[in-house]
Amino acid sequence: MSKEVLIPIANGSEDIETVTLIDVLRRAQANVTVASIGEELLVVAARGTKIIADVKISDCKMKEWDLIALPGGMPGAKNLSENSVLVELLKSQNEKGKLYAAICASPAIVLQPHGLLIEKNACCYPAFRENIPPEQLAPAHNRVVVDQNCITSLGPATAIEFALKLVELLFGKDLSDTIGKAMLC
Amino acid sequence: MSKEVLIPIANGSEDIETVTLIDVLRRAQANVTVASIGEELLVVAARGTKIIADVKISDCKMKEWDLIALPGGMPGAKNLSENSVLVELLKSQNEKGKLYAAICASPAIVLQPHGLLIEKNACCYPAFRENIPPEQLAPAHNRVVVDQNCITSLGPATAIEFALKLVELLFGKDLSDTIGKAMLC
Ligand SMILES: [Cu+]
Repeated sequence: MSKEVLIPIANGSEDIETVTLIDVLRRAQANVTVASIGEELLVVAARGTKIIADVKISDCKMKEWDLIALPGGMPGAKNLSENSVLVELLKSQNEKGKLYAAICASPAIVLQPHGLLIEKNACCYPAFRENIPPEQLAPAHNRVVVDQNCITSLGPATAIEFALKLVELLFGKDLSDTIGKAMLC
Repeated sequence: MSKEVLIPIANGSEDIETVTLIDVLRRAQANVTVASIGEELLVVAARGTKIIADVKISDCKMKEWDLIALPGGMPGAKNLSENSVLVELLKSQNEKGKLYAAICASPAIVLQPHGLLIEKNACCYPAFRENIPPEQLAPAHNRVVVDQNCITSLGPATAIEFALKLVELLFGKDLSDTIGKAMLC
């Protein structure tokens, strides 16, 4: 059975992180929905890539998600953090024990302030580590951290590993390895 | 002085390769123009990412480019290869000894059939190596190959290294290293 994956994006989301999540999860045949948190489907990423989302985040409320995965980038992470529909979706995801994931600025700027890292270890882009309580920070050499239903990662150069770990958690290690090989990891 | 970089894209261009070129070259402050080779600015990448180009390729003819860089992906590379405006731009770029670059399927599917690998060593996605004469193929462990004004690379997992090499050739190794560090390479 396929898996329903929500990728919320905002103006200022990091280009590579956004598209790597979309690309790798679609290679796994996940049913990926790219949702703009704004009024427009057009999102301008942090380095100016113009991406058309599939839907608006308000269309995503009544659905069950197997995974919600957040790209980083600034001010994208701040924009995601200020969207109440997304925050409710993430909290509900956590209450159900279902998977959510964030990379780069987003663990610190989206998950942490909304209580989504409570009793979880995490990592994030180095410049944002101070936003996460030290006792929850994974050692700096960790590139992807899985703690229960919460997956975090560092930044653009770890985006493929991060996405492949999400594939592994949804579909198993065999498929994740196969896709990694096809991408020449 | 900034550099003018043309990134031609088509339906079926590989999502990660396309956006990594855009992102990394813009981090270097290159003046990046994303050009759709079709009649529409909207391009649907190989894994469904919907990207809005800045211009159509027909608007790019009268300009001088410091670099033309091609993403791979199928059928994106085939679509690029069949576009006569782009092919003329690439040939003219080579005649002037200026930089052009291709990753994944594109060295084999775009550069090779149009004579743009003559007397040049290159690499490409493993499945396309048979399209390049063996004496021109770099050994399989090469992830990025620079031969004179022609730069080639393997696929999604080498896209960041490829883009950083292009930054190095345009702006120098210091900036390339700085950007690589900021991306956590
Ligand atoms: Cu970031």
